[in-house]
Amino acid sequence: MNAEIIAIGSELLTPFRQDTNSLFLTRRLNDLGVEVTCKTIVGDSLEDIRDVTRQALWRAGIVILTGGLGPTEDDLTREAVAAALGVELKRDPDLIARLYARFAARQVTMPPNNERQADLVGNATVLPNPAGTAPGQWIETVFEGHPRVVILLPGPPWELESLFESECFERLRKQAPPVFRGTRKLRVAMVPESACDARIAPIYKQYPDIQTTILANAGDIELHLRATAGSLEAAQARADELAGKLEDELDDCLYSNTGEPLEQIVGYFLQMRSATLATAESCTGGLLAQRITSVSGSSRYFLGGAVTYHNELKTLFAGVPPLMIQAHGAVSKEVAAAMAEGIRHDCNATIGVAITGIAGPNGGTPEKPVGLVYHALHDGIRTEVIEKKFPGDRARIRQWATQQALDMIRRHLM
Amino acid sequence: MNAEIIAIGSELLTPFRQDTNSLFLTRRLNDLGVEVTCKTIVGDSLEDIRDVTRQALWRAGIVILTGGLGPTEDDLTREAVAAALGVELKRDPDLIARLYARFAARQVTMPPNNERQADLVGNATVLPNPAGTAPGQWIETVFEGHPRVVILLPGPPWELESLFESECFERLRKQAPPVFRGTRKLRVAMVPESACDARIAPIYKQYPDIQTTILANAGDIELHLRATAGSLEAAQARADELAGKLEDELDDCLYSNTGEPLEQIVGYFLQMRSATLATAESCTGGLLAQRITSVSGSSRYFLGGAVTYHNELKTLFAGVPPLMIQAHGAVSKEVAAAMAEGIRHDCNATIGVAITGIAGPNGGTPEKPVGLVYHALHDGIRTEVIEKKFPGDRARIRQWATQQALDMIRRHLM
Repeated sequence: MNAEIIAIGSELLTPFRQDTNSLFLTRRLNDLGVEVTCKTIVGDSLEDIRDVTRQALWRAGIVILTGGLGPTEDDLTREAVAAALGVELKRDPDLIARLYARFAARQVTMPPNNERQADLVGNATVLPNPAGTAPGQWIETVFEGHPRVVILLPGPPWELESLFESECFERLRKQAPPVFRGTRKLRVAMVPESACDARIAPIYKQYPDIQTTILANAGDIELHLRATAGSLEAAQARADELAGKLEDELDDCLYSNTGEPLEQIVGYFLQMRSATLATAESCTGGLLAQRITSVSGSSRYFLGGAVTYHNELKTLFAGVPPLMIQAHGAVSKEVAAAMAEGIRHDCNATIGVAITGIAGPNGGTPEKPVGLVYHALHDGIRTEVIEKKFPGDRARIRQWATQQALDMIRRHLM
Repeated sequence: MNAEIIAIGSELLTPFRQDTNSLFLTRRLNDLGVEVTCKTIVGDSLEDIRDVTRQALWRAGIVILTGGLGPTEDDLTREAVAAALGVELKRDPDLIARLYARFAARQVTMPPNNERQADLVGNATVLPNPAGTAPGQWIETVFEGHPRVVILLPGPPWELESLFESECFERLRKQAPPVFRGTRKLRVAMVPESACDARIAPIYKQYPDIQTTILANAGDIELHLRATAGSLEAAQARADELAGKLEDELDDCLYSNTGEPLEQIVGYFLQMRSATLATAESCTGGLLAQRITSVSGSSRYFLGGAVTYHNELKTLFAGVPPLMIQAHGAVSKEVAAAMAEGIRHDCNATIGVAITGIAGPNGGTPEKPVGLVYHALHDGIRTEVIEKKFPGDRARIRQWATQQALDMIRRHLM
């Protein structure tokens, strides 16, 4: 069974905004075994909405329209869908009463144009919207001889998502022939995308029935597996089988087989070992600490650290001897190691981690080019230093560098 | 004149990827006075691409298709557009020769399927693609009695953008009736979206000819103004006039009238005053330092700072007396002030800034709920503290808090 999504709103046709509801809807439709075969974004024009709705009805069993359900003159989805289906709008007295009650409860007089939100497309079923005034609508119809489901949903994501979960998902399950999906999400650190694909393609190509999607970011790869079978157990077993072979191949480059980000995995490992962490950052300027503390509960293992942007602070906060900086330069193996040792000592942490490098776009030299980064880890006994030359712009180099540092911690604790 | 954009690729119909080329194309088309009235995302299906292309040709003078120009069997844009227009594909011998030369230059034998990239839709003009093997195509045609321009562009953004700039923009300018646009981008800190709109709506509504778009993030609002007139000067003057009135109304809440982010503006101010900055962060965990150092050249004014996540580090790095933390709690006016004073003193900076708060989702109490944040600034003489209660989740609260801290620095230096 297939679906089309139509996002309505002239603001979605500017350079500034993008439809994101369809990502959520696609994920949930896929969970039901429904494929999204086309997405359309159209402005607040009655004719345009009507026309693209008719075209979608020709092609798809399920047509979901998002947005354009509010009370203003720009909100034309109801009228346009009624025109596309050749049915009348009916103003629902119960809905009007509910709208007035909703405003009265907030001690506000309802502007009369809000009554438009009580207009139902033909014999539509009302989908109550606890998070807003515009209800959704569920329409089962026959279009040119084909059974069709048309769903109208409000545009604000928090309204759309809760309404879809509470009112649409189970109803759609009854419409869609039972298809069972098994999914897995694996994550890999510090392997280039092409190298990763070269290693795993021979494996996943033996599973042509499983959809494998590879998403690559700076030093981070997500592998999404989606298997289909006659039962949930069979589908999940199939996805698990491929996941298992990929895990064997990727070995310790794989850091998660359930999808968590690296900073979360590092947090688990630190807690498991009852270890604490302190960081000293130069070129990443706090990004490493920020990623670690983006995890709720990170105060259980992250003590804190220093952003030693200027050389004096490398000495003040991490005890790096000024003569060492003079001799080797701030971006050097030696200084990275001293920063890790110093911050660990000062903070009294189990592990100290440090980053120093050249994020660019300026400050590079032939000997020390933009992208050169040293990462160091000290555990009280040994110091490990990794030198890397990262590609990309300032933001990407900083992201790579923090990923490398997190991966060092993970491997150290493994 | 209006345009439609069709993005092609089954990966754009998954929950993981989104068409972003259309944002770039919309911005450049708008610059030419061309409005985008519909966007369609469709998979690698000959019939679907053909059908949505025909529908777009009914409605729009310019139809741009992105993606599906590669050498594989999934790349069907050429075939589908030829079918939609009812013309033949012609394999261009010059293009074949260029493809072979390109591979030969890299000392690679060209797989024969690459010849498909030399197929031209009817009498299409070739748009050379220096960044990739798939050239673009420019087709001027008459569809059902209407003159139409159809443009085929490669999917990878860096190929698409450079090819559009070098081959399409000037060609389109000749097609589009001359329309002149003046634009302005204003940015506002720490004003809620509804409050901002209440202040400026009475002003921008007096300029119905100017498109005003409001984009709100945590503590940050962007106002995009776009005026249209018979000459570039008149259009820019019109946009400037509205921008001037909005600047008067927003007064010192407006931090940029050219669109730079707040961390960049703070950098300008610090450099102008020859001032240096040090930061001490608790709940934002390095996000403030990371934002400041995301600006290239920030080492000229940012010395560094501390992420004092644990209370001991508040004492170690920022000299906060342990008894003060015991008496008032780590999230308090007093500790925020002491952190700002201490980090300024330790780093020998002109200005010290500190943040301490509860980012959640755990750790809140009735007296000190999630979202409570103290921000402090010390300049060697006076200490200023701002208490705020921010809405949203952990990430949003942290973003709000760093925005507040940056705005304190800006206002202090103003």
